[in-house]
Formats: sequence, C-alpha cells, structure tokens
Amino acid sequence: MTFTVSPETLSKINSTHRQSVPALDVPVRLLLGPGPSNADPAVVAAMNRQPIGHLDPAYTALMDEVQNLLRYVWQTQNKLTLPMSGTGSAAMEATIANVVEPGDVVLVGVKGYFGHRLVDMAGRYGADVRSIHHAWGEVFTLPELRAALEEHRPQVLALVHAETSTGARQPLEGVGDLCREFDCLLIADTVTSLGGEPIFLDDWKVDLAYSCSQKGLSCPPGSSPFTIGERGLAKMDKRQTKVANWYLDVSMLRNYWGSGRVYHHTAPVNMTYAIREALRLVSEEGLETSWQRHRTNAEKLWAGLQDLGLSCHVPHENRLTTLTTVKVPDGIDAKAVTKALLTEHNIEIGNGLGELGGKVWRIGLMGANSKPENVDRVLEALGQVLAKMKG
Amino acid sequence: MTFTVSPETLSKINSTHRQSVPALDVPVRLLLGPGPSNADPAVVAAMNRQPIGHLDPAYTALMDEVQNLLRYVWQTQNKLTLPMSGTGSAAMEATIANVVEPGDVVLVGVKGYFGHRLVDMAGRYGADVRSIHHAWGEVFTLPELRAALEEHRPQVLALVHAETSTGARQPLEGVGDLCREFDCLLIADTVTSLGGEPIFLDDWKVDLAYSCSQKGLSCPPGSSPFTIGERGLAKMDKRQTKVANWYLDVSMLRNYWGSGRVYHHTAPVNMTYAIREALRLVSEEGLETSWQRHRTNAEKLWAGLQDLGLSCHVPHENRLTTLTTVKVPDGIDAKAVTKALLTEHNIEIGNGLGELGGKVWRIGLMGANSKPENVDRVLEALGQVLAKMKG
Repeated sequence: MTFTVSPETLSKINSTHRQSVPALDVPVRLLLGPGPSNADPAVVAAMNRQPIGHLDPAYTALMDEVQNLLRYVWQTQNKLTLPMSGTGSAAMEATIANVVEPGDVVLVGVKGYFGHRLVDMAGRYGADVRSIHHAWGEVFTLPELRAALEEHRPQVLALVHAETSTGARQPLEGVGDLCREFDCLLIADTVTSLGGEPIFLDDWKVDLAYSCSQKGLSCPPGSSPFTIGERGLAKMDKRQTKVANWYLDVSMLRNYWGSGRVYHHTAPVNMTYAIREALRLVSEEGLETSWQRHRTNAEKLWAGLQDLGLSCHVPHENRLTTLTTVKVPDGIDAKAVTKALLTEHNIEIGNGLGELGGKVWRIGLMGANSKPENVDRVLEALGQVLAKMKG
Repeated sequence: MTFTVSPETLSKINSTHRQSVPALDVPVRLLLGPGPSNADPAVVAAMNRQPIGHLDPAYTALMDEVQNLLRYVWQTQNKLTLPMSGTGSAAMEATIANVVEPGDVVLVGVKGYFGHRLVDMAGRYGADVRSIHHAWGEVFTLPELRAALEEHRPQVLALVHAETSTGARQPLEGVGDLCREFDCLLIADTVTSLGGEPIFLDDWKVDLAYSCSQKGLSCPPGSSPFTIGERGLAKMDKRQTKVANWYLDVSMLRNYWGSGRVYHHTAPVNMTYAIREALRLVSEEGLETSWQRHRTNAEKLWAGLQDLGLSCHVPHENRLTTLTTVKVPDGIDAKAVTKALLTEHNIEIGNGLGELGGKVWRIGLMGANSKPENVDRVLEALGQVLAKMKG
C-alpha cells in the first residue's frame, strides 16, 4: 500500500512547461466589432460567484428561469428553448445535428460567411446539401425562396436572419408559411439579431433557431440559445439513426432540461448565472425599448458615418441595427485602421470576413453597447485614424 | 425608410414569458461530490472582468499560456494541447470525432458509466465498437488488454483513467506500448484525475486525452482540456471524410490555436481567463505538492470513514485520491443522506450513478477542495446525518 506518492514518481516530473506567468491582466476594450460585445457589468458580477452542482435544486430553478426568459426574448412558446453549453456555433450545429439525417435534402440560402458554414455543417451530417446564392450583403425574396423550394424539395431550409459577415437582415415574414406548404423545416440563425432586432419566431413559423450570448444579450460568450418547436421534434423523434453528435443531442438533453432532470453533461454553471442575468436585464428593459434603442443608435451611427464621407455596404431597408458594414474607402488599408483603433483607442471593430475581407469594416452596436456615447466614441476615433492615414 | 420600429411591430410583442425574476441569489455550497468542485476564489476573480475579442493580441497571448501550462499539468509535449469550448463531455467527444472514421474498430474498456458513454459516442461516429468489461470499481490488467487487442485489432483503444462513477484508477503504465505494438491509438479519459492524480501522458504514450476544468483544476465548468499527439494527428490527416463534428474539428481548430490565428468559432473568453488562472495556480503549487496533497487528504478521509464504520467500494491500491466511493450501509436510504447533507449542511456529495445507484456515495476532494478542513467537515456532517437516520 502507498500512503504517499513515491519519490520515484515525483522525480519523473518534467517542468519544462511549468511557466511562471503573472496574474491575469487584460486590457479594457470597447468591443464594437461583430462580437463578442462588452458584457453588462451586472452580468459579469453575476458570474462572479462559486459554482453549485448542476443537479442542485437551486440550479435547476435557474434553468427554468433561463428557459422562460429566452422564450420571451425570442417570442416563442417552444418548450425546448434552452442554452447549449458552448458558443454560438455549437447551437448552430445543434439545429443541424438534431433534425438532419443522412440523405436529407438541406437547402441553404447563402449570402455570406455563415451561410457557407451551414453548408459545411449540414454536409458533415450526411445531408444532400443544395444551396442558393445572393451576393454578400443582399437577401432573398419570397418568390426566390418559393422557386428554390419547388426545385429542391428539401426537408430543411436554413436561412441566416442576421448575417454577421455582411450586416444584412433577411426578412423572415412569410418564409415559415412557405416551408409548411412544402413540408419542410425552417432553421433560422439569429446570432446577431437576438435582443436587438425584432424577432417573432412563432409568428414567422420558424422551427429551429439558434443564437449566442455575447452580442444582443450583453453576456460573455459560452452559453448559446437554442430552440426547437413541435415540427422539429416530430422529425427528430422519427429518426432512424441516433443524433450524430452526443454533446448536442436534444433527445437526451430534454430529459435534463425537462422534469426528469436526468444527468447528461455537466453544465457550464457560471455561464448560466451570466445568461440568466443577461436575459433578466433584457426582460426588465422590455423588447420594445431594446429594439427601439438599437434602431435609434444605429441611425445615429449611419448619419455620423455619412458625415465622415463613409458609406454603408447594405441598403437601408435591409441593414441590421446591431451590425453595420462600412465600405473601406479606396486607398485605405482596412486592417491598419482596425489595428490603430485597437492599439491607440482601445476600440475593437471588425475587419471584413471572407469575400468582404479588406472591403468593409464591421461596427457592432449590440446589447448594452448600443448607446449614443459609444456611437460618438467610435465615430470620433475612426475620424481621427482616417484623417491621420490620409495625411 | 423606417427610422423607428413600427408601432404595428411593437404591438405584436407577447409578454407571457416576460418573467420578473429577482437578482441572482445562489446558495454557498461546499462541493464535495463528483464535480463541479468549488473554484479557487482567485479563479472566480479572474473571470470577473470584461471579455475581449477572440482575435485580440492580448487574448491570443493568453491562449499560448494556457496551452503551455496545460502541457505541464498533463506532462506532455503535444503541440495541440488546448481547451475545448465546452464542458468535459465535449472534449471527450472531440477525441472520438477527430480520429474515428466510419468502419474503424474502436475498443472500449468498460468498467463504469463513462466507459459506456465512450461506447455510445464512438457508435455515433460510425465506429465498429467492441467492448471489454469489468465490474464497476475494478480495472483492467495488461494481459487482459493484450488479449483484447489481439482479438479485436482495433484502430483505437479508449480507456478511462479515473472512472468518475466508481472511483477506480486504471493504471496506464505500459498500455501505450501495447497500443504501439498493435498499431492502435490510445485515448485516455483524465476528467477526474488531471491536477490531482499523477499523470504522465507522454511517458505512458497516450495519443489523445481529455479532461475538464471543474475538478482538479478548481475552475468553473466550461473549458475542457484536450490533447492530441503526432500519431493521432497522422490518423486525422489521413481521413477520407471530414471530421463529423464541425465545432470540435481539430483540423480547423489548429489554425486558430496555431500561428495562423484563423477564426473558427468565438471562444468562451471569460472561461479562458478562468482556466488560465486555474492552471497558473497548479503550476505555482507544483504537481509534486498537489499530487501529494490529494494523497494525504484522501488517506485522511478513508481513515475517517473507517472510524464511522463505513467502507470504500474500491480496493486501496486502485482508489482515486480525487474521488472516493463509499458503500451505503444496509438499511440506509442513500438519497435521503445526500439530500440532508445538502439542505442541512450545504455540502454536496454525489449519489451513485448507473449500476452503483443507491449502493455508494461519491465524495470528491479535488483541487482547492482537497484540504484537511473539508475532510473534517464532511466526516462530521455525514456522521451526524447517519446517526440521526439510525435514530
């Protein structure tokens, strides 16, 4: 019997990587990019406590509150509305993984980076993926979607409501009706819209949706809203194969989030504290006020950009209030500008992604960060940096 | 053009779920179950700050530190050593998802709940899953493993080093050599051992391993160590199919964690703050001291349990120092005891899981929680509760 760790064992320890690092020191940034956005200080404070067990009655009570508040923010009655234990892409993958079976036709509307990601993901789950395309920054019309549904007869249509790479808002009114006509499920990406842009999931007849915590909800990243309605569950329940993703398997997760409280995986407890506080704050403010605030501050930003001689990539009617793509003027090095904003002004804005790399900047005004002072701050800093560059 | 959200839109808002909930109030628990364990206060404090961007140079510097410190704690030189953006089961799934292709023979040593989980996961990735079994609480010998490798000729052998459901430690010395002899990869589950039990991944020739943050590292759950060595990468690089899990795809993640810093998914930034501080603390204490501390406090617990007339489920030589399974005496309602400990003493210990449900309790002494005062506290409370029940 060993009552101590043997000296022989201890002598084998290799300390090459026993790096002596200083205590954490992180710069304070104003995050006005595509996300993460700054967290509300109350949300950070909520996280600042000891975890409790994921089966503790005090924890399961929080879970119920999170579910209910999420239903309000998304405007859905879906019972299975819950945060996935990862960042937004995990919730995105959860929608695909749970309802797609090998051979299913999945139609994706691609008009930006995240449409391409849906194509990639659906393919990994064995889908027969079809796609329709628009230039980055444009959106699909109902007649275009109808024609595509007629042609492809998919089991699932996936559309990005708020394309984080382009700043365009895809109108979803009427799309759910179309999908029911063609007996197809509708998945909507609301990563950059939840909390900031009007969303009526049930009115729009969206069957599955996903989002993130670190944008319109003013919460750090790591807990990601997911919802599935009755039509989605019906398809899941008829699966011939297990969900090809254990961690995100809703057929098991629903026994943990439901009354059974059957252990599935350990929840990211402190992230649940955070998103619960974040949702509480949105509910306290009210969607009316929050949506209106995002609209007002976005209009202020757009006017200010115009005053700087800059123009937006997306036409006004489809422009997201949460995220604006600004055209990079000729002769300006886009990355040099974002770098100067970060290092000289502690302001993060985003570079263009994919096709729009080097062509646009992305300015986010999301959640608690959507306020006039931030608009003034980014406009002033951007004006200074551009003036310096133009010499 | 709309410069405000229309009154018509606002009037559609349904406030059924606009629940008015109080500010967060969570009881303070001493978490001495199978996990989560309490976080070190310094770790909670590290999390208590604003997120920064996942491509911010200040963030990528933290990533490098986390990788390096993880290599120390695991005793590996693997370049691809990083935390996955989820809880432990996500890191578990990452090991399977990245190296298993449909049709691969995966051999799982099952001697508890988490062995069964590996079987389930591997099946979802199309593996031809074989399993060998021991009673829950026992472990495999090298001759048994050799015989199974000879019989099944697997591409992957998965073994749980520290079975959280049984409290048994599977010796891994020599297993990696066996696997090389049979040209097979070795996956090890170190969820309940990392930081507390001696682990020498490279010496043991483990090819892939996974763990969690909320046990031996004294961090909240949500950021989960993963590592893959050269042999694992070689198999991954020869895949005929894409990794069947987008979120956990190491062939993409390595471009973000490597020098390219190519965006994959948004990182759970504040969880990275937390695990970086947690790893810093382990490194500051040193593995020698930490392992010895876990051993000393476990021995104290075991002696104290004996004094209470209780006995351990696992023989001393295979008993984990991080997690002890205690036999429930005849005539005692196991769940009534854990409930009384939680509600009357604010101490969480675990109930038995799966086959051991109702038969054992699980007492964890992990990370910062492994200290003599906690041993005294749980023994005293358990003694009181049992005395009351026996009337």
